[in-house]
Amino acid sequence: MRYEEFTIEGRHAVIEAFRSGKTIDKIFIQDGCKDGPIETIKREAKKHDCIIRFVTKERLSQMSETGKHQGVIAYAAAYEYAQIEDILKRAKEKGEPPFLILLDNIEDPHNLGAIIRTANLSGAHGVIIPKNRAAGLTAAVARASAGALNYTPVAKVTNLTKTIEELKKQGLWFVCADMDGTPMYQLDLKGPIGLVIGSEGEGVGRMVKKSCDFIASIPMKGEIDSLNASVAAGVLAYEIVRQRMG
Amino acid sequence: MRYEEFTIEGRHAVIEAFRSGKTIDKIFIQDGCKDGPIETIKREAKKHDCIIRFVTKERLSQMSETGKHQGVIAYAAAYEYAQIEDILKRAKEKGEPPFLILLDNIEDPHNLGAIIRTANLSGAHGVIIPKNRAAGLTAAVARASAGALNYTPVAKVTNLTKTIEELKKQGLWFVCADMDGTPMYQLDLKGPIGLVIGSEGEGVGRMVKKSCDFIASIPMKGEIDSLNASVAAGVLAYEIVRQRMG
Repeated sequence: MRYEEFTIEGRHAVIEAFRSGKTIDKIFIQDGCKDGPIETIKREAKKHDCIIRFVTKERLSQMSETGKHQGVIAYAAAYEYAQIEDILKRAKEKGEPPFLILLDNIEDPHNLGAIIRTANLSGAHGVIIPKNRAAGLTAAVARASAGALNYTPVAKVTNLTKTIEELKKQGLWFVCADMDGTPMYQLDLKGPIGLVIGSEGEGVGRMVKKSCDFIASIPMKGEIDSLNASVAAGVLAYEIVRQRMG
Repeated sequence: MRYEEFTIEGRHAVIEAFRSGKTIDKIFIQDGCKDGPIETIKREAKKHDCIIRFVTKERLSQMSETGKHQGVIAYAAAYEYAQIEDILKRAKEKGEPPFLILLDNIEDPHNLGAIIRTANLSGAHGVIIPKNRAAGLTAAVARASAGALNYTPVAKVTNLTKTIEELKKQGLWFVCADMDGTPMYQLDLKGPIGLVIGSEGEGVGRMVKKSCDFIASIPMKGEIDSLNASVAAGVLAYEIVRQRMG
């Protein structure tokens, strides 16, 4: 399994988990606990946007696996990121031209999870996300991915533009989704490809867009601006599927 | 505007709003308020799954439009549902074969909103939802629709199967999405069409599925079961767009 959820029990273990940068999604604190370490945990939880639930001592004891929770149990997520080489190897093993999905500034965990789910089902060999600003692979992302996070490798890179430039040398073409592009049906999306999806508000970043070979547009017939990012990713990914089948 | 948010201020007005069946999304209650009417409001709020926020008196006074909040302000949603005839008329006015999206058991407001958004951009003339079990058109749906709720009409019907049968008499074909169907690329989706999308867990209901003319499948290449419902709706809606353009 690439993705696991596990529990951390006890004040010091939970504080230590925050300090070491672990992704903690949810914390259960015993009703009425107000001492120093618990206050530290509450502060850290707020800082990291993690959910706090106050529960009775009995409930906490039921949840406890060690029986030594000291008034606090945390749920943490552990995900083993893939390397880009692993993703390319996966394509090679399947005898398919590489199909990667790259995400620029996708911050909503539901969208991130739904896109990983789409990547899995559309036969993409992996997903690439940038280190900064992107949503981490939390329990919310894992849930929204409906299990796909266990199958579809996700790599984290420092600089998306640099990664694109490197992958271009290995023969990949890059297409990003934006409104001012060529209708997607007119593009040849059959070869080794990286599909770049930006956030709904800002779209794909300027530098990233510049490094792409094509800009693909989804026909827009309505009054509003744009599709939900995960829907747009799905529509484009399946246009690639359709062309590759043909 | 078809969709509006408005505030209801004061204990009795808020209780009355609950009693009359208005959709209330969020309630702001003054810190420390604990009397009978406030307790009634909290109970009703829990029953209707609406969010409660406790705020200071100062904050509540800032939010108040009337200056007479009595410790409570509610945010309610008002949506004017369309009639199916309006949706068909819209298609006729545009000189296009009708394209409807019907939702069976979609309960998640993010998915519902994202599908209304997709309906708008893919040129669907309207969305039909069943009265029972479906998510209501709340502020969460309106937000997820990114404004589409103001443009794309949504009709609410008592019995989806009956509606399908009636629309068939008017020349519409119905296609539902399911795994055991014909690959969508092989179906002719150009004529007057109703696209039926089911929930992720249960899919399209048995009776509804039986009343459809075709079952369309999205190719699934991965390890997991199904796409997110709004992504599946997007992929199918855009296959209809592609075929209609060709």
